[in-house]
Amino acid sequence: MPHITLPDNVPGIRSLVLYRPDTGQPLYELAQTVLRAGSPDSTLTDAERELIAAYVSSQNCTDFCRMSHAAASRYLFGNQAPVVDQVLNDPDTAPVSARLRALLVIAQRTAQDARTVDDTVVAAARAHGATDGDIHDTVLIAASFCMFNRYVDGLATLTLTPTDPALYEAMGERMGTLGYVVPTKAEATLSDGPSSSL
Amino acid sequence: MPHITLPDNVPGIRSLVLYRPDTGQPLYELAQTVLRAGSPDSTLTDAERELIAAYVSSQNCTDFCRMSHAAASRYLFGNQAPVVDQVLNDPDTAPVSARLRALLVIAQRTAQDARTVDDTVVAAARAHGATDGDIHDTVLIAASFCMFNRYVDGLATLTLTPTDPALYEAMGERMGTLGYVVPTKAEATLSDGPSSSL
Repeated sequence: MPHITLPDNVPGIRSLVLYRPDTGQPLYELAQTVLRAGSPDSTLTDAERELIAAYVSSQNCTDFCRMSHAAASRYLFGNQAPVVDQVLNDPDTAPVSARLRALLVIAQRTAQDARTVDDTVVAAARAHGATDGDIHDTVLIAASFCMFNRYVDGLATLTLTPTDPALYEAMGERMGTLGYVVPTKAEATLSDGPSSSL
Repeated sequence: MPHITLPDNVPGIRSLVLYRPDTGQPLYELAQTVLRAGSPDSTLTDAERELIAAYVSSQNCTDFCRMSHAAASRYLFGNQAPVVDQVLNDPDTAPVSARLRALLVIAQRTAQDARTVDDTVVAAARAHGATDGDIHDTVLIAASFCMFNRYVDGLATLTLTPTDPALYEAMGERMGTLGYVVPTKAEATLSDGPSSSL
């Protein structure tokens, strides 16, 4: 049960955005910018951005964020969707590019202790083609999900149990197509279906 | 030296905001909302909000954020300014209200592992007068500084050494009066003086 009075039957960050639209607005704008727009010189695809978000949420053990962003990443990867769960299970052996694998190391270090993002791991990413924008965006995606994860966990917001994969699948499709738009109460509420983003 | 090419002689998050104004804008809007506006029912003062930000930055060992937000908090506390360093040194013995002490526990747990913000620590804060808004804002300030701290540390942005306390004092005064406005390059650059916020 959430630690503060939030709208009923609304999971995760959606409940917090309805509770405080003034903080919700910049939070959704940030999500849209880091998960979609990206740096001008970045080579990261939207599918890869969502995968970094899901991976960091997995490291932080925040189920709602992990499941929803994994669903968005699967949708965006299309016929390569199985790679998402392979990365979440073991990024070292998942069939991803050396560039993305190196960026996942930077994401993991940013989440655990950002001071350990050192010249060695940055050089490794560059050696495999990562640009300044890729490194910037990876660090900011990881850092921002350390915020989103703590925000939903620290207030004990409602977490869905993965009893209905279709729920997450539809959520992922919406996140993959519409991106991050502040939901209305009707859109955010579970009884009205999994129509909202984030 | 920063991991990516950033404007010369600009410390901390200011360099990142100049590098990517599109992400800087929602980040500064978020800072302004959580450190100034606050929830309608919140009893937290601006000085206390800045203190929570400095305390979390201290926990995360991010010097630039700790020093700049501590300076802002000192400015806002006025003749009670010594309490800032007392909290940073030992929140258990610092002469703060029982309400703020209980909220600092929630902030510390949010930063370390937000899943440990349990009913007990929330009830303790409520017993001392904390409102829903206080609890919400404390968690979001702590969560957002886990992001800001990781963003500046993960990219190894320039950190000032505290050789000139007047630099931080002037910075704190500006943050305490103008709040969080995206700086221009001239404002953000050290050679032009400590005129910028955050």
